[in-house]
Amino acid sequence: MEDLESFFLNVKPVKILIALNNPGAENYASAISKRTDCTYSHTVRIIQNMEEYGLVESNKKGRKKEIKLTEEGLELAKALSESLHLME
Amino acid sequence: MEDLESFFLNVKPVKILIALNNPGAENYASAISKRTDCTYSHTVRIIQNMEEYGLVESNKKGRKKEIKLTEEGLELAKALSESLHLME
Repeated sequence: MEDLESFFLNVKPVKILIALNNPGAENYASAISKRTDCTYSHTVRIIQNMEEYGLVESNKKGRKKEIKLTEEGLELAKALSESLHLME
Repeated sequence: MEDLESFFLNVKPVKILIALNNPGAENYASAISKRTDCTYSHTVRIIQNMEEYGLVESNKKGRKKEIKLTEEGLELAKALSESLHLME
């Protein structure tokens, strides 16, 4: 049987959103990709989708792009984090 | 672009779990299947999985099987309902 997380969730997008709720850190796609054990290109694609949904904003910092949750993204990250926590 | 719900969630299992949090109603697979717009056989399979995960219990009532959330299932249903609500 598949694990509980994958039964209810698309685990990668959920984990990436939650990983972005990390105000102390600099959130770049490369770091998020490492933290969530997701390939760089997959991470970038997921973050692009999140930007189109209005869940994140990005700011260019030199050659890098810093990614920040919007208010909406933050609320959703918290709710999904709670759900994920209950599945552990 | 796919909708926000399907981007993060496996929508059918999530909606079925939430539909089971309905203490006033008699929860049978047939009724749940109608409420969630999911085929009967898919609904039964999902509910069987939930039983194996310990999220629901079933009690035979004559030829029918009444389905009830366990304490764990109820907590998860609430958290997922909150997440889904934020995606509307």
